Amino acid sequence: MRDFIGRDALFRKFIIDNFEKVFRIYGYDPLESPALEMWQTLSAKGGEEIEAETFKFKDKGDRDVGLRFDLTVPLARIVATNPVIPKPFKRYAIGKVWRYDQPQAGRYREFTQADVDIIGVEDMIADAEVISVAIDALKPVIGEYFKIRLNNRKILKGMIELAGIDESLSFECFRAIDKLDKIGIDGVKQELKQRGISGAQVDTLMGFLDLRGEPEKILPQTEEIMKTSKIGTEGVVELAQLLDYLDFMGNLEFIEVDLSLARGLDYYTGPIFEVAYTKYKGIGSIGAGGRYDNLIKKLGGVQTSATGISLGVDRIIDILQKTDQIPEELGGIDIYVVAITDEVHEHALKITQKLRSLGLITEYELMGRNLRKALKYADMRGAKFMIAIGPKDIENNTVSVRDMIKKSQFTVPISELYREIIELLRE
Amino acid sequence: MRDFIGRDALFRKFIIDNFEKVFRIYGYDPLESPALEMWQTLSAKGGEEIEAETFKFKDKGDRDVGLRFDLTVPLARIVATNPVIPKPFKRYAIGKVWRYDQPQAGRYREFTQADVDIIGVEDMIADAEVISVAIDALKPVIGEYFKIRLNNRKILKGMIELAGIDESLSFECFRAIDKLDKIGIDGVKQELKQRGISGAQVDTLMGFLDLRGEPEKILPQTEEIMKTSKIGTEGVVELAQLLDYLDFMGNLEFIEVDLSLARGLDYYTGPIFEVAYTKYKGIGSIGAGGRYDNLIKKLGGVQTSATGISLGVDRIIDILQKTDQIPEELGGIDIYVVAITDEVHEHALKITQKLRSLGLITEYELMGRNLRKALKYADMRGAKFMIAIGPKDIENNTVSVRDMIKKSQFTVPISELYREIIELLRE
Repeated sequence: MRDFIGRDALFRKFIIDNFEKVFRIYGYDPLESPALEMWQTLSAKGGEEIEAETFKFKDKGDRDVGLRFDLTVPLARIVATNPVIPKPFKRYAIGKVWRYDQPQAGRYREFTQADVDIIGVEDMIADAEVISVAIDALKPVIGEYFKIRLNNRKILKGMIELAGIDESLSFECFRAIDKLDKIGIDGVKQELKQRGISGAQVDTLMGFLDLRGEPEKILPQTEEIMKTSKIGTEGVVELAQLLDYLDFMGNLEFIEVDLSLARGLDYYTGPIFEVAYTKYKGIGSIGAGGRYDNLIKKLGGVQTSATGISLGVDRIIDILQKTDQIPEELGGIDIYVVAITDEVHEHALKITQKLRSLGLITEYELMGRNLRKALKYADMRGAKFMIAIGPKDIENNTVSVRDMIKKSQFTVPISELYREIIELLRE
Repeated sequence: MRDFIGRDALFRKFIIDNFEKVFRIYGYDPLESPALEMWQTLSAKGGEEIEAETFKFKDKGDRDVGLRFDLTVPLARIVATNPVIPKPFKRYAIGKVWRYDQPQAGRYREFTQADVDIIGVEDMIADAEVISVAIDALKPVIGEYFKIRLNNRKILKGMIELAGIDESLSFECFRAIDKLDKIGIDGVKQELKQRGISGAQVDTLMGFLDLRGEPEKILPQTEEIMKTSKIGTEGVVELAQLLDYLDFMGNLEFIEVDLSLARGLDYYTGPIFEVAYTKYKGIGSIGAGGRYDNLIKKLGGVQTSATGISLGVDRIIDILQKTDQIPEELGGIDIYVVAITDEVHEHALKITQKLRSLGLITEYELMGRNLRKALKYADMRGAKFMIAIGPKDIENNTVSVRDMIKKSQFTVPISELYREIIELLRE
């Protein structure tokens, strides 16, 4: 777990503010849920790693609780217990989640997710919308160097049917296939065999796992699935519909179909997506999501359609930091005010408070440093102007202003100061 | 622990955004620290309630950890372990903290604090600044219905010295006096006697505890403390200096001196402050703070001056909600777009994405509802305009716009739509 100080903290704020702006433009409202959830809720999500990865403990009332490991389960719990929420319910959430992973590059035990979800819409237009939100949120932050990889759990089930694998093994297959990037083709083959899949069945599955690329190239290759599997056909139709909507929304250029995409979590029921950064290799996914039409029911609610996407804020920041893509002018202050003697504090503080009341970011020299040291500090802080006030200034009703960027100095009557500074800052 | 949905979540965002804006205007930078801290760090703060009130558990590595109960201890840990941070270090933090309190009105087990702190400034100007930040942050949110109550731990120590109480009992006395609002004068007397203070000593202390009011009325009554106690004199001088600075900053009208203010936490060393809401009685403090010059050293750092104030976001929201002071026009969307038939999705989504790219908050009808139902939903969402697009609109190159507030309707050529809507929204 990490602290974020100075420019790191400012940069996080910058990324999160940008995401939030796009989420609001798409009409999503914020939702906040507690860090702690009952273990019963957290464990409903399923997946074999949940118990090992969750910060779980007994509270002082001897109840099993845990720190949330994502923002989806809390959302599903809220919808399950508040059936009156009008649908569609479009919410965003940006918050910390916790997983007891072994620390490694790009993985932290506390990290921040930025999620958008749509509850109550069966049509693929909802999936297209959350993907489009993610695209529009990412573009201003990381440029156009990313792809959204798409697949559908129903297509995967179709493959499994086609391979003659028993349906009860499908989650096992998903989890094995999900490790493709980590353990490679041979690793997945071995894992599938260990889970009781025959060699011929594995080979049939493997035949689909290298189908990735532009939609119009991949879709025709699902013909065999469509011929043999009803659920597989449903998945292909959903994928085609989703691609249509993404086309209508002008976002097809960011899309790649990838029939090897499986996602590790059990709860997905339809489309699944993953965001890959493409400028550099070897960077894991920076976002992921999918449709989870059964999770709300599993948490005690009525059957409700749901889909969403989650962006990994820490991963995105890591990429931008490692590749020197952090904007220069983060933070910084407008004006630094220095009282040259103790006697002028009253006058100097009045001016400072007035500048602040005008919305200008103003710092006051708090350590009684001399002008030379204060100037150095003001420069380090990225101040645009420094105002030094001495006894003479009070006599003359003037203020000396130093333009820290042009490195020039001028004196203005106090009555002109505020207008002058505001105009100069606007330039 | 609570969920915040819909207007509640929007209102929290509104309050936090307002606070953050003021914190930045004063030149504070953000800092983020993890939810979990080592128990060793958390327990350094002292105070008898820490262990009982903290969510403490063993992590999977068998280490004692706990959820942070405030934002001050994490800050002190960071400064202690990063001695190179340039001083003054002015940081704000807005984040969740956790305490295992018995749930009651105005107290939650998870709540949000908004803190500003200045590290490295010995002079009372730092205390005056953090108090002024709090005043300027609160004014736009809760109006002028609050007072900052001021005292100084050194004045309290002076009283204890004057009463002839052994110095080793001073923290016991602070904790007893801190309960004045909860258990009353008689309760405090009893508590002090239980802690081994004699009746005459208690009476001497009690003589000071009803000294509260405007600074110029209270300060002269500290004469006796100044005569007998060196540390008490230091405290009075610090208080007088602090009041001067607050006067220079134009904030004296919000200040009340209260010699009964003690604060329960052990780590304060000088000025202590508490923010009281004054429009209604019986509301606990909505903020508090003080100087803690020894905490950073206690956490393994070098001796470093430090002071700060913390605003209780949940308390403030509770007050505004209970007294119906929540702004009407929270959230809301600019435009609601409806495709009347499935065939026009492509056209309607193109328009929607264009509106969004212009920064307009735009929602798209996702559930294929008819015009009547969509209109009802758009109204519930607070949409300012609704655009309904049918096959005829494509033929005619026009768009029908409904002004949801004026309840009027008009048709514009598509080429005029964006300019027209932007102008109408500006009105």
